[in-house]
Amino acid sequence: GGGSESAHGYRAEGKASYYGSRHHGRRTASGERFDQHALTAAHRTLPFGTRVKVTNLNNDRTVVVRINDRGPHTRGRIIDLSHEAAERLGMLRAGVALVRVETID
Amino acid sequence: GGGSESAHGYRAEGKASYYGSRHHGRRTASGERFDQHALTAAHRTLPFGTRVKVTNLNNDRTVVVRINDRGPHTRGRIIDLSHEAAERLGMLRAGVALVRVETID
Repeated sequence: GGGSESAHGYRAEGKASYYGSRHHGRRTASGERFDQHALTAAHRTLPFGTRVKVTNLNNDRTVVVRINDRGPHTRGRIIDLSHEAAERLGMLRAGVALVRVETID
Repeated sequence: GGGSESAHGYRAEGKASYYGSRHHGRRTASGERFDQHALTAAHRTLPFGTRVKVTNLNNDRTVVVRINDRGPHTRGRIIDLSHEAAERLGMLRAGVALVRVETID
């Protein structure tokens, strides 16, 4: 997706989880194949291609990811991160972390 | 599932992948809630409750897991492991590993 359809001014706080390698190589909702080593994420509404900064509110680590899939499918979660993104946020062990998600301009 | 319905003598080699935390807390096909910190796995045919030894053929590390879900849904994979099991096998980074799966008596 092109940057022209990116959302601006979105900001939310909630729980993040991450994809396992069982998805690696499968198609995402955007049509791209899922790559667990890329910095991507699933969000329910943001346009594909939107880049968001995700902050782990437990340790203030941040990562920028590009939305290329739809989800999470679990109530109470706001974003599903790739394994690489989850690793950078230091949330692999815990599995679920409280994060802030905000679009970047 | 009880041990009385366990399969005996099953042995296969193929690729393993693992679940992400996006599944944590969701229902598995066996009715149990998925717990990424438990030693469990998804297999297409083995009865729920079957315990199998999984060997990472790249490094000879092993782990015993209990089948409590159905999958993998991706061609060419024979088992989906919990995050804890994948960590013990040293396959988190690679994501997919060649493994041997065998029932234990």
